[in-house]
Amino acid sequence: MADKAAQPIIVLVRPQLGENIGKAARAMLNFGLTEMRLVSPRDGWPNPSAGPAAAGADTLLDNASIHPTLADAVADCRHVYATTVRKRGVSKRVLTPEMAVQEIQAAQGRSAIVFGPERSGLETGDVALAGAILTVPVNPDFPSLNLAQAVILCAYEWSKLGAMAVPTTEKLLPPAAQEELEGLIDHFERLLEPRSYFWPEARATASRLTLRNMLTKPGWNSLELRSLRGILSTLEKEPRERD
Amino acid sequence: MADKAAQPIIVLVRPQLGENIGKAARAMLNFGLTEMRLVSPRDGWPNPSAGPAAAGADTLLDNASIHPTLADAVADCRHVYATTVRKRGVSKRVLTPEMAVQEIQAAQGRSAIVFGPERSGLETGDVALAGAILTVPVNPDFPSLNLAQAVILCAYEWSKLGAMAVPTTEKLLPPAAQEELEGLIDHFERLLEPRSYFWPEARATASRLTLRNMLTKPGWNSLELRSLRGILSTLEKEPRERD
Repeated sequence: MADKAAQPIIVLVRPQLGENIGKAARAMLNFGLTEMRLVSPRDGWPNPSAGPAAAGADTLLDNASIHPTLADAVADCRHVYATTVRKRGVSKRVLTPEMAVQEIQAAQGRSAIVFGPERSGLETGDVALAGAILTVPVNPDFPSLNLAQAVILCAYEWSKLGAMAVPTTEKLLPPAAQEELEGLIDHFERLLEPRSYFWPEARATASRLTLRNMLTKPGWNSLELRSLRGILSTLEKEPRERD
Repeated sequence: MADKAAQPIIVLVRPQLGENIGKAARAMLNFGLTEMRLVSPRDGWPNPSAGPAAAGADTLLDNASIHPTLADAVADCRHVYATTVRKRGVSKRVLTPEMAVQEIQAAQGRSAIVFGPERSGLETGDVALAGAILTVPVNPDFPSLNLAQAVILCAYEWSKLGAMAVPTTEKLLPPAAQEELEGLIDHFERLLEPRSYFWPEARATASRLTLRNMLTKPGWNSLELRSLRGILSTLEKEPRERD
């Protein structure tokens, strides 16, 4: 997780539905963001629909601060990013979420990522407060990203910076030692030889090589090799008669 | 946007709410993914709640195919990724969305990313069908990612690749289609069953799962699978007497 002190503040400007505020909170907490600020939510605050939609991220809602204007909400921030879908003919830098969070991580002072109302997005006056534009590079033929989705993509990119809990394959057993693998190959050959698999002689070398390559490819671990040896031993038995 | 021919198929296994299917479709289309497959949706199909939630991504829903089982849904896929939140003690590679889409872009043959039901996630038997695990590196203290958000993060990572030059892969044959692999697994089971390998009954399910996981791991190609089928057929023969 990136350093908590430096994490961006998520600012929702005039959000319409409590449900969407809750979903945004959930999306934030999914990736370790905890600080939300609300600018005059349409239906007031607290909003009874927000909590259920937050699905457990209630503390984040409880701690959200309410502000009359965007200027008030970002008063203590040194870096303000306004999210918009389309460029606005504003002469500001336009960044992807990935670029923005890299800046935020390297920045001194608090940063805010600002999201507009669900239907209309940020107004020109809101965008004017920001030092840069953040735009998610979305499918141009279908750009209607909902609020919580826009928030989660930013939070996700933030968490990626921290190399947070990259799923490790550490618990995987390593491939078995070569001699164990040789044991399996021998076992196969011992069963196949008397059944003329390596016949005619001219093809024997190629067939053995194919067999070896196939059995080497998986990188089976010791447990798996043991299971396979058990399977081969089972195949040596006579099948029992069908009833 | 990455080449459409190679784009991953999104497979939803036993999704519960039509609304979530619609939201997943919207998330896909936001980042240019268009191919959805559904495995026995709980409330049947079509589902009247899906369309409104798709918010314009209706064509994607109209083109979704319905399948009775996951095996059927991924029969033509050569690379199957099972999304899970937690590790399952399964000896498979664990990838982030970013790692997975990089593999998918470089891969030959179709790839599927498989998502489980909203509440419970994929079952062990579903995971056993996949060659690798996809895990979103989410906040360990708050890992409840909803379905559409898990989908959008994968789609987003896919679309991010579009800017990059595709490194051409070596002339390796791609893994065989899932139905060919199923043929091998069936063949093994057909030989093992009458030799009491799956006995006692209490251990049968675990043994079948172990077998499936071992045989899924290698990513054998069609030629290799054909050789293995030949080996199994050979093992069915009586050994000739030693001179």
